[in-house]
Amino acid sequence: MRETAPVKTALLYEGKAKRVYACADEETCIVSYTDAATAYNGLKKGFIPGKGAVVNRVTNALMRYLSSEGIPTHYIRELSDTETLVRRVRMLPLEVIVRNYTSGSLAHRLGLEEGLPLTTPVLEFNYKSDALDDPLVNTCHILSFGWASEEQVQRMKALSLRVNTLLTGYLDRLGIRLVDFKLEYGVTGGGELLLADEISPDTCRFWDIKTGEKLDKDRFRRDMGGVTEAYQEVMRRFCAQAAC
Amino acid sequence: MRETAPVKTALLYEGKAKRVYACADEETCIVSYTDAATAYNGLKKGFIPGKGAVVNRVTNALMRYLSSEGIPTHYIRELSDTETLVRRVRMLPLEVIVRNYTSGSLAHRLGLEEGLPLTTPVLEFNYKSDALDDPLVNTCHILSFGWASEEQVQRMKALSLRVNTLLTGYLDRLGIRLVDFKLEYGVTGGGELLLADEISPDTCRFWDIKTGEKLDKDRFRRDMGGVTEAYQEVMRRFCAQAAC
Repeated sequence: MRETAPVKTALLYEGKAKRVYACADEETCIVSYTDAATAYNGLKKGFIPGKGAVVNRVTNALMRYLSSEGIPTHYIRELSDTETLVRRVRMLPLEVIVRNYTSGSLAHRLGLEEGLPLTTPVLEFNYKSDALDDPLVNTCHILSFGWASEEQVQRMKALSLRVNTLLTGYLDRLGIRLVDFKLEYGVTGGGELLLADEISPDTCRFWDIKTGEKLDKDRFRRDMGGVTEAYQEVMRRFCAQAAC
Repeated sequence: MRETAPVKTALLYEGKAKRVYACADEETCIVSYTDAATAYNGLKKGFIPGKGAVVNRVTNALMRYLSSEGIPTHYIRELSDTETLVRRVRMLPLEVIVRNYTSGSLAHRLGLEEGLPLTTPVLEFNYKSDALDDPLVNTCHILSFGWASEEQVQRMKALSLRVNTLLTGYLDRLGIRLVDFKLEYGVTGGGELLLADEISPDTCRFWDIKTGEKLDKDRFRRDMGGVTEAYQEVMRRFCAQAAC
C-alpha cells in the first residue's frame, strides 16, 4: 500500500539551501533542499545545478545506514528527489564538528598544513550564529549559556564519535576519505535527542582516497571548478552501492 | 639564619615583561619582573612605573596563600621587590582562563555585554602562540597535538576551579571582584604539575567591588588613564592585609 504524501501546512524555516515545512501531523515536518550554495556564512552565493537532489539523497542514504546501526535520527522517509519527511525537533544551537585530518578552520586557526592525519579524532562545538561567525565554544560555554544540558553534551559527543567510526567505514567502501564533517542535533517534544539536519558534500569534507581530489563544497568555496561534477560523482558512488 | 642569595647563571627566557634566569641549583630558577607593559600580543607597548614590583609582590602573596591551601605552586621565596626564586619547570604551552563575569575575548567572541555574571565559572584553554594570537582550543586539540596529557588536563581543570574559589574569597576581603584570570602550569623534572607564572593585575581582571572601577591591565589596553595608580591601589590593599 502506498503511503499518502503528507501535505505542507506552513513554512517553518528558510535556510540558505533548504526550507522546512510543517505538516498536518505536528510530530513531523518536510525538508526541501534547493540548488542554492553559500559559503563563508552567506558572503559567497551561487547555484550548483542538481545539488538539492544530491544532498537529499546522500543525506538519506547515510541517515538510513546510521539508523540501522542504532543512531537515533530524525529521518522517516524520502518523499521525492529533493524532499524528505523527518521527525520534528527543536534544533540545539550548536554544530558538532568531527575531524580526522587537518583542514578548514582548524588548519587556519592553528597554522597547520591541510590533510595531516590527527592521532585521535578531534571533536569541536561551534555556537550557531551567522552574526558571530559560528564561534568555537567549549562545554563550559554551552552549560553556562544554557545551549544544551550536560547530559545532551555528553550524548552528542558519544554519538558523534560513533557516527565518525560508522561513516568512515561506509565511505571508505565508496573510495571516499572522510576528512571532517558537521552534525546538528535536535530534541523532540518528548525530550529525545536525535541526529538531524543533513550529512552531505555541503557539510562534510570528502576526498577521493586514491587521488586526494576534493568531492565537496570546498570546490565551490575555493573556486576550484568542477563543482557540479564533484557532487554528481559522490551521487554516482552512492547509487553504485544501491544506497540511494 | 639568612639564606644565601642564589646566583643567576644564565638567561633562560626573556618574555614581554619578565626574565627567567637559571641558578646553580638546576631545580630552581629566578623570575625577574620589569616595568614593561604590552597588550594585544605585543602590538601595544609601554611602561608602567613600579609595575614589576606590584606584579612580583601580588603574585607571591597569592602563591603563598594558594600553597597554604594545598595548591601545588612553583613558589619558593621572594628575593627582592622584583625577583623571586621558584622551582624550575617545563611550561605547558597552554593558558587556562577562568571567568566569573563576561569580559574581554569571551564578550567579544559571543557578542555579549561586559560584566554579566556567569551562572557557573567558565574555564577555557588557549594554545600559547603569539603568531596565532593564542587561539581557544579544547581538550581534543590538546590531546591530539600532545600539548598535555589527559591526566594533566583534568588536573589543570580541577586545580584552576579550586584556585578560582580560593582567590574569589581572598580578593573579596580586599574589596576586589575577580572577573577573570589566566593561569599557566609547568611540569618538574620529576613529572609534578605545578601552578607557575604570575597572578597579578597583568593577568587578572580586578574590579573594585563597590565602584566597578578597573584595577588591572585593561586600563593600559584601553587607554583609560590612571594605570600606575590602579596597580599601586592593588598593592596598597594587599599590604593593608600584611599580605606582601
